[in-house]
This record gives sequence, structure tokens and C-alpha cells, in this order.
Amino acid sequence: MATAPSVSYSITVRLEVPASGGAVGRLTTAVESSGGSVTGLDVTASGHEKLRIDVTIAASSTDHAADIVSKLRSIDGVTIGKVSDRTFLMHLGGKIEMQSKHPIRNRDDLSMVYTPGVARVCLAIAENPEDARRLTIKRNSVAVVTDGSAVLGLGNIGPKAALPVMEGKAALFKRFAGIDAWPLCLDTQDTDEIVAIVKAIAPGFAGINLEDISAPRCFEIEARLREALDIPVFHDDQHGTAIVVLAALTNALRCVGKEIGDLRVVMSGAGAAGTAILKLLLAAGVKHAVVADIHGVVHAQRDDLKDVGPQTPLRWIAENTNPAGATGTLKDAVVGADVFIGVSAPNVLEGADIARMAEGAIVFALANPDPEVDPAEARETAAVVATGRSDFPNQINNVLVFPGVFRGLLDAQSRTVNTEMMLAAARALASVVGDDELNPNYIVPSVFNDKVAGAVADAVRDAARAAAPERGNGFPASTV
Amino acid sequence: MATAPSVSYSITVRLEVPASGGAVGRLTTAVESSGGSVTGLDVTASGHEKLRIDVTIAASSTDHAADIVSKLRSIDGVTIGKVSDRTFLMHLGGKIEMQSKHPIRNRDDLSMVYTPGVARVCLAIAENPEDARRLTIKRNSVAVVTDGSAVLGLGNIGPKAALPVMEGKAALFKRFAGIDAWPLCLDTQDTDEIVAIVKAIAPGFAGINLEDISAPRCFEIEARLREALDIPVFHDDQHGTAIVVLAALTNALRCVGKEIGDLRVVMSGAGAAGTAILKLLLAAGVKHAVVADIHGVVHAQRDDLKDVGPQTPLRWIAENTNPAGATGTLKDAVVGADVFIGVSAPNVLEGADIARMAEGAIVFALANPDPEVDPAEARETAAVVATGRSDFPNQINNVLVFPGVFRGLLDAQSRTVNTEMMLAAARALASVVGDDELNPNYIVPSVFNDKVAGAVADAVRDAARAAAPERGNGFPASTV
Repeated sequence: MATAPSVSYSITVRLEVPASGGAVGRLTTAVESSGGSVTGLDVTASGHEKLRIDVTIAASSTDHAADIVSKLRSIDGVTIGKVSDRTFLMHLGGKIEMQSKHPIRNRDDLSMVYTPGVARVCLAIAENPEDARRLTIKRNSVAVVTDGSAVLGLGNIGPKAALPVMEGKAALFKRFAGIDAWPLCLDTQDTDEIVAIVKAIAPGFAGINLEDISAPRCFEIEARLREALDIPVFHDDQHGTAIVVLAALTNALRCVGKEIGDLRVVMSGAGAAGTAILKLLLAAGVKHAVVADIHGVVHAQRDDLKDVGPQTPLRWIAENTNPAGATGTLKDAVVGADVFIGVSAPNVLEGADIARMAEGAIVFALANPDPEVDPAEARETAAVVATGRSDFPNQINNVLVFPGVFRGLLDAQSRTVNTEMMLAAARALASVVGDDELNPNYIVPSVFNDKVAGAVADAVRDAARAAAPERGNGFPASTV
Repeated sequence: MATAPSVSYSITVRLEVPASGGAVGRLTTAVESSGGSVTGLDVTASGHEKLRIDVTIAASSTDHAADIVSKLRSIDGVTIGKVSDRTFLMHLGGKIEMQSKHPIRNRDDLSMVYTPGVARVCLAIAENPEDARRLTIKRNSVAVVTDGSAVLGLGNIGPKAALPVMEGKAALFKRFAGIDAWPLCLDTQDTDEIVAIVKAIAPGFAGINLEDISAPRCFEIEARLREALDIPVFHDDQHGTAIVVLAALTNALRCVGKEIGDLRVVMSGAGAAGTAILKLLLAAGVKHAVVADIHGVVHAQRDDLKDVGPQTPLRWIAENTNPAGATGTLKDAVVGADVFIGVSAPNVLEGADIARMAEGAIVFALANPDPEVDPAEARETAAVVATGRSDFPNQINNVLVFPGVFRGLLDAQSRTVNTEMMLAAARALASVVGDDELNPNYIVPSVFNDKVAGAVADAVRDAARAAAPERGNGFPASTV
């Protein structure tokens, strides 16, 4: 799977070339012949002798970009100046900021935004703390909380290195759902401490988005916070992924004409995402599921279950899947299966394994950047193939879900997020793909489809209000 | 001290009046005769029979506003509709928001702001954590942290009710210094927990502004955090106040022609602000200070010192002030003093006490809203009088200081804030008032004076760089 030039490895090279002759043309040729792609060429200064040009080039990796620059350097008459990495430039000083909603022009403005006027608002909230959801940023704010222990595919890189991801997440919350999210990257990986910290910062937020916290700590942290807090706690790596997978599976079934209750589902991976996907699929009606991890198929007699506690995900999986007590390897398990879902590691299956699945097989190979099976090989026999990559059809991408889920929860002033709300979100996301659009290469909409966030938000809001009708429309009677 | 009508008690009344006749004129008369002030009058609908008018009225209190509305109601032909409180309207949904700095229009934008491009930025920071100050929001972000235990003059109203103040503070950080501040209102008042929480959230911020945390916990929390963190920790209620007081005193001395080392200073109040003011005045050269609290003058033989630990502020005061061992009451202490500074309680002194101070007396009566002595009485004999109120000359207001202090600290990428930096901030603030402007009613500039924040920031930045010259200009060599 060769990687195409991408803007995520895009550089801008400032260079000087002779004004006459074919040097400019040779630039473009050199880039293209090196496998790069010129995406912009701006003459920033021009004279009789020389031109100064900023060439923007998409490469396929950092090394590739360096190769291209050295090719440019070898062209006769070309002088290379500053080389800027567009992605790094975009990150300088951070990607998000705080804005005041009201101008503070004079003493009058100051006396309402701050002292002395603000005191009356404080007293109103002290008297009725629920008013914080109306008179403060709590109404529309979400904390994006990580400990940096499982960031993207990068692993345990710590809180500072996780910050660019969390800023990006906050930017997406605003872009797709108008939510004010602020990143909190914690300098601790102690479960008790994380729970205590998130409980303590909760008064200023209407929801908590846990992000990139490694398993199994993420399970306990989420469970304890849900128990303790009166605002919804959502671990996107688990539940966001699970919702998109269920939506994609729903639409894949529309393609192949099967019913969810009849499926034989095989999963590879028993980590945070895998466990959450499994639970949501079972809640949605899957009856026959088998999970394999690095030691093979999970079954009740497996040796390593003796050492784990009663509350662990592995034991839960053993007790809630594989009723026939199948044993063996992942490759054994996929024979005759209707659905394969991988949230594990690259290349655990081959095209030949997929060929042994049932007719109309559905393959979601979500390991990133290298899927569990080469999607091109899988497509030779499977009816529907999806991955986590943006350069193949059917990308399983959490951005489809988390903005709308939180928009719905905040609009309903929900105190929790439950399985019903997640099922509603999955149904809503699936329904964005109309019958006239549906096909095996389009089972999930684009993240830029402007119907997605609204559809998910409406469904979640309605489910949240149904779960707590006494909370009304979120506008308590007031002094305003 | 009757209170004048103020926009912080401003209401907008929607009402209908007959189109003909003098009803409109009677509205204004009714408001003015009730002691209110009409600040806006908009006809929002007009017909042959009736006018619909929105009248905006400044009152002096909530009760006063209600009185005015009932006066309006009694005017013949007037129908009162919705009454809106302008301060509450301004707080609906909160006063601040999160904004993305870059548009996310398409897949290319997404691949730089978020995955996959963001991964390279994360890896760069994982390799060199200092790069977080360059490539993330850490560069320009301050956490505004409170536990809601000592909010304004309102006391222990808790974290949710404190939120409007912290939002206002964040708005002021942006307005006056371009800083991105986010409020964290903590649902705990346990010292150990607060210290652990602030340590944990520090990776995403370049500074910590502690706010409205009650004494004596605030001293320990600040000291432990300064010890633990590599970013500056500043308790504004203490140090912001101290810096403005020192600046104001500096300029008051310019008015009366005295030297700081010669002064006899008497302070009322040994709380958070009082202790910080005292320490900064001593660092600035004050040699003769006496502090009184509710039990009278603090001296080394006082009974209540036996029960307090060696690290407590009261013992520190006893050991560092009052070398002559004076005893007695506050009223005894002010006789012959050059300077009185009150950060305590209303009306602990009378005009007659101020009259017994030395020639050219300086009185800072900062209790809010009711000062330690009636400023009108104090002015009869004192040379310079300042208060914390916005409706008298010489307002001692922290807004003059905290934005510039943090701007300077952030620009220098300072890891700490020390006494030298605070002294520099006070000198800079004082110097904004030129010799041609200086007089006893203008010893501190207006908060809207656009030279203030820049002057303070420059002074603090230079002092911070002098303290840690190896940190350079904050732009480490990089891959960009």
C-alpha cells in the first residue's frame, strides 16, 4: 500500500531561480518526477535577474519531503531558502483560543461583565446552582480530558505531546457542533487521581470527553466518573468508535440484505474500542459473537481468565460471547463468519481468510494506519469493506459522531449518556445515507456532510429527554 | 454614602403607552423623580393608538429597580411588559467561548489540524517537551483556578456560583493582554486536593492564576504549587492587590514629597491581601510598619501567637513588623502615622482618627463596598485618599496589574514569578502617571488607559529575562 502525496506532509520551499530560462519549469518537473505534487506556486518577488518563489509541495512522508528538497537543490541556478512545514506552521502558538462574547469598551461594560454587577449573578447561582447551566459557560462547555497514555497510534507520549490532538478535538467540537471544548492534559496516570481531578473540575462543564486513555484504566475511570457526576462522561475512543461501527454495520446489512440477529460476528481485539463495540452490537441485537485477542479466541475455559478479576473486560467477553465454546485462532473463527471487525493490529488476516467467510461478507479492518487485512485483497471476496483510513472508501471516523452526541446531550442538559442514546446516535448516522445513495462503497457519510451532526444531535437529544422528561427544555423559569 | 444609579443595576422595561398625549413624557419624569436614570428609550413598534417602547433605566439597587417599575405601572394608560435585567442578559450562556484559529473546510484542513498530520507535531513534542510552549496553546494559556471559597465580597459561595467572576476574569485577560484564560472552578476546598489538581492540569498552561481562595489555605496552596511547577503561580487577590497598592503609594509619595524608608505605615487586616501588601512594601523599602487585626496591634507578646504554627502569616507579621513592640488598638496605632492601608472591614476608623495622622497623610481604605473610613471624611485632613470603589477617585483595581503581569511572564516564558518582577510591575504602573498628570486625585491610571498593560508587561518580561537569561527570547531553534 504505497502512500500518495498528502497535505499532512506538505512543505513550502522558498527558493530563488534565474528570471530567464526554463528553471521554473524544471522545478515542477523535479517535484513530479520525485513522486511529489506541486499544490501552489507563488512568485513573492520578481526582478530582471531573479525570481523569488514559494513552492508548496505535498509529499508522502517527512523523508520524501527531504528527498524532494535535495532534488530541487541540485537544479542549476536554484538557491533554496527557508523550508516550512505547513502542518507545523498551523500549530505555532496552538490551534484554539479563548474569546470574549461581549466587548469591554468602558466602565459600564466592565461593571456588568465583572464587578460590581457580576455579584448579583453569582448570588443567583449560589441560591439556585442549576442556574449555572443558564448563566455561565457550563451550558455549552465540554472538557476534553486525557492523560496522554494512548494517543492516536503513538502510545504513551504524555500530556504535553497529547495537546495538539486535544486542541484538534476541541476545534472539531466547535466546527461541527458549536461546542466550547477546552483541553485538559493531565500530568498523572493514576486512576484515583484522574477520577478525583475530573470530579473536581466538573462544575464548569456540561460534559466530559475522555480521550486517549489506555485500557484497562479507561474502563474504571469512566465507570467511576459516571457514578459520581451529574454530567455525561463519554470515552470517545470506546463509544464514538462503537457508534460509527454500528451505523456502518447497519448500512452494510442494508447492502447485503441480512438481519442483525442472524449474523455470525467475529472480532479481533479486546481493548477499549473492541469491548465497547461488542457491547453496543449486543445491545443492538447481535446474538452470535466471537472475540479473539492475541492469545486466540476468548472462551470461558481459557487459562488466562483464572488470573483476572470478576469485573474485567476479558471475563465479561468470555461470559457474554461464544456460547458454543469455540476455541482456536482468529483464522479458525472467521471461517463462515458474516462479519469481521478488527480493532487490533496490522495484517492478522490475509485475503484467503476473507475468502473463507460466508457469502456477502462484511469486513471492517480498523487498525490504523495498517489494517488487519489489506483492503484490496479483502474486497476480492467480501461484499463490503471499511477501514479507519481516509484514503479508502468507508472510513470509520469518530468525527462523524462525537460532536453530534455531545450537542444532543448538552441541548437536553442530560446528566448521563446511556446505551439507548448511543443506539439512537447510530441509527441517526446510518439514516443519513439514503436508499438512493447507499452502496458497498458508501455505507457512511462524509465527515463534511452537513446533515450528520444535526441528525445525530436530534436523535441523542430526544433519547436524553425521553430518559429524563422532568428536565424539560433546559430553560428553567428565571429572573431574566 | 448614597449610591448613584449604575448600569450594573440596569433594566430594560418593555411597555405600551397611548400614542397621543403626554404619557411618554410622564415615563421619563417618573423614572427621574424616583432617583433612576433613563439611559435609552427605543420605540420598537408604533401605531395610531399605541406605541411599544423599550426603556432602559439605571437604578442603584435591585429594590430600587423594582420601585421604579411599580411607579411606571401606576402611570395612566401604561402597560408594563417584560422587564429584563441587562446584567443577567449579558450572562446568558456564559461570557466567553472557545474559537478555532483555523477554518476546517475540507479533508486537507482536517488532515493538518487533526489526524494524520497532527501525529508528527505530537512526536516532535514527545521528543522535546519544551516545544509545547511553541506548538500548542500552552504558549498563551492561563488557568484561572478557584475553589469558590472567598468570592468577591460574597464569601464561600462554591465553585458554580464563582464561575461568572472567573469568566469575567478570563475576558479581562483577553481584553487587556491578549491572553487565553480558561476558568477551572474546583469542587473541593481541600488543600492537598487543590494542589494535586493544579499540578496535574499544568501541562496545558503557561501560568496559573489562583483566584478567590480563602486564607490561610491560599498561602499553603500557592507556596506548594510554586515549589512543584515550572510555570508561574500568582494569587491575584494577594499579589495583584499588593502591586497596585505599591504603585499607588509610590505616586502618593510623589505628591506629598516623602521617602518610602521614612514612612510610618499602619495596616488594618492580616488576611491574604494584607499579608501580601505588607511583604511587598517591606521589599520596596518600608522600614516602619505596624499591623492591626480584629484583636488590635500585632506584636510578638500577643497571647494568640502561642497557638499558631511557625509558618503562619500572623507569626511572620509579628516577627517582621512593629520592632518597637507597640500594643493597643488600631486607633492608637494610626496616631502620627504617615500611611494607613485598610484591607479589613467597613468603618473601623473615623475622620477624627485620620486627623490624628501625620501631616501629608496617605489613606488607602480598600474594604469593598464600604471602606474602613468614609473617604469624604478622610479627605478633610488626609493629603491623598484611595479606595477600592469605582465611584471615587484613585481606585485600587487589580485589573491594572494582572493582565500585564501575565503577559510579561508568558512573553519571557518565565517558570516563576518573584518579588523582583512584582516590584518592577509596580514601578511600571506608577510611571504611567506622568509628572504633568500627577495629583492627589490621580495617583493611579484608569483601567482603560491603553499604556498600562504594555508598560507592566514590558517591565515584568525584562525582570523575568534578567532572572533567567538562558531562556532567551522564547523561540527555540526548530524544524519549522
